[in-house]
Amino acid sequence: MTVKQLTLPELTEACVRLGIGGVGLWREPVQAYGVDAAARLVRAAGLTVTSLCRGGFLTAVDAAERARALADNHAAIDEAATLGTDTLILVSGGLPAGSRDLAAARERIADALTVLAPYAAGRGVRLAIEPLHPMYASDRCVVSTLTQALDLAERFPSSQVGVVVDTYHIWWDDTAPSAVTRAGATDRIHAFQLADWTTPLPAGVLNGRGQIGDGAIDLRAWRDLVDAAGYGGAIEVELFNDGLWARDGVEVLRETAIRFVEHVVPKK
Amino acid sequence: MTVKQLTLPELTEACVRLGIGGVGLWREPVQAYGVDAAARLVRAAGLTVTSLCRGGFLTAVDAAERARALADNHAAIDEAATLGTDTLILVSGGLPAGSRDLAAARERIADALTVLAPYAAGRGVRLAIEPLHPMYASDRCVVSTLTQALDLAERFPSSQVGVVVDTYHIWWDDTAPSAVTRAGATDRIHAFQLADWTTPLPAGVLNGRGQIGDGAIDLRAWRDLVDAAGYGGAIEVELFNDGLWARDGVEVLRETAIRFVEHVVPKK
Repeated sequence: MTVKQLTLPELTEACVRLGIGGVGLWREPVQAYGVDAAARLVRAAGLTVTSLCRGGFLTAVDAAERARALADNHAAIDEAATLGTDTLILVSGGLPAGSRDLAAARERIADALTVLAPYAAGRGVRLAIEPLHPMYASDRCVVSTLTQALDLAERFPSSQVGVVVDTYHIWWDDTAPSAVTRAGATDRIHAFQLADWTTPLPAGVLNGRGQIGDGAIDLRAWRDLVDAAGYGGAIEVELFNDGLWARDGVEVLRETAIRFVEHVVPKK
Repeated sequence: MTVKQLTLPELTEACVRLGIGGVGLWREPVQAYGVDAAARLVRAAGLTVTSLCRGGFLTAVDAAERARALADNHAAIDEAATLGTDTLILVSGGLPAGSRDLAAARERIADALTVLAPYAAGRGVRLAIEPLHPMYASDRCVVSTLTQALDLAERFPSSQVGVVVDTYHIWWDDTAPSAVTRAGATDRIHAFQLADWTTPLPAGVLNGRGQIGDGAIDLRAWRDLVDAAGYGGAIEVELFNDGLWARDGVEVLRETAIRFVEHVVPKK
């Protein structure tokens, strides 16, 4: 998504040229390209698919809506398996229209996971619950903190359900560092994503994630923390940013790689 | 601020007509009208000044900037005393330019409070730390949760430093209800403010607070919780909303009173 202006072939070629060994994919461009074709393309390029984004939106009360959400998540799991990634990222969903009950919505997510987690495990896919910044709590994701995500995940085996550590969503939270340690101790950090926090936020607050190094987050400190928690997986950079999307995608990817080295790679 | 389109005389007159017995004031319109004159106006109308908003912005590193902030807070305390309110609300301040250290910024707030709290107490004014929604953590307030606010407040006597419970800022937080109980147990709920959460958020995310009943927050549940915690003070409605500001202020105040009865006053 950081460079959604690139086609999948352009993206894989640019990754290979820059020495980026893995790529996190989103469902929509993969579906548009064809899931099997995308899997072949990425495999032929020698790239790992680090994660597929995203399943989730599991908070509906209405039975038909709920059934549709579960079917869509089954499809997402199948797509992840076809792409050869072991991680499907879940954005849980917001409050149903007219509801003000966050706790009940969170409980419906747990209910859905009891169905989805074993199905995913049967296909070699882990589900990774992503807490989203509290500014998305009503309309996008009722799971707002890493602790809430872990409380949900820990009802299931760590091989089935874990969490996403995304700096953009949790950087402000002084309880998040200990939650990272807790997640690492039970092998539940299934993905680690970076974006920086910049202001002012744009209307709708979706597409204002800052390029690495442009914002308020001490990204190297978070990387050190996640390292210390025992995480050895990929580090993804996920920027939703109208400014970056308006630029040449290969140039943005190159800039992002430079910023990653400057701000995230350990200094020695 | 909910009806900032009204002059202070219009505001006090409308409050009296609607049977609203108290009003929270902001410094800027009070200063423009004259602090002594505002105090006389409100007193003559028989209204209580429930709180003065706001002091704070105490996170500067630069010595001159820090001295200016302390002087401004001393002035705010004096203004609160002149207005006859016992509560000055503090918005702590964001990260200084170029800093990424939230913990150090929070510590500088505590340092400033050691100077300000006794000064305020000498004038019969309590300082109320307001946690702001995490979307303001970088540029406005590094205190993002009620627990963080309480951790700061509890370093001082409860007669000197407490917290603000504002539904807009904490509604998403599943740890906030227990923090409300903790705050009530030590008499640290110094103000209780209501606003509803509506989306999409506007650019800059400052002026999108929802009218009571328009959004995702179960306001009556929060009121019950704050009641149960032993709070017996005023309930303020504080809406920053471009749409409401564009309308007739008296009409907005009347609507707000109706919404308050519909959505906040206990049903029996």
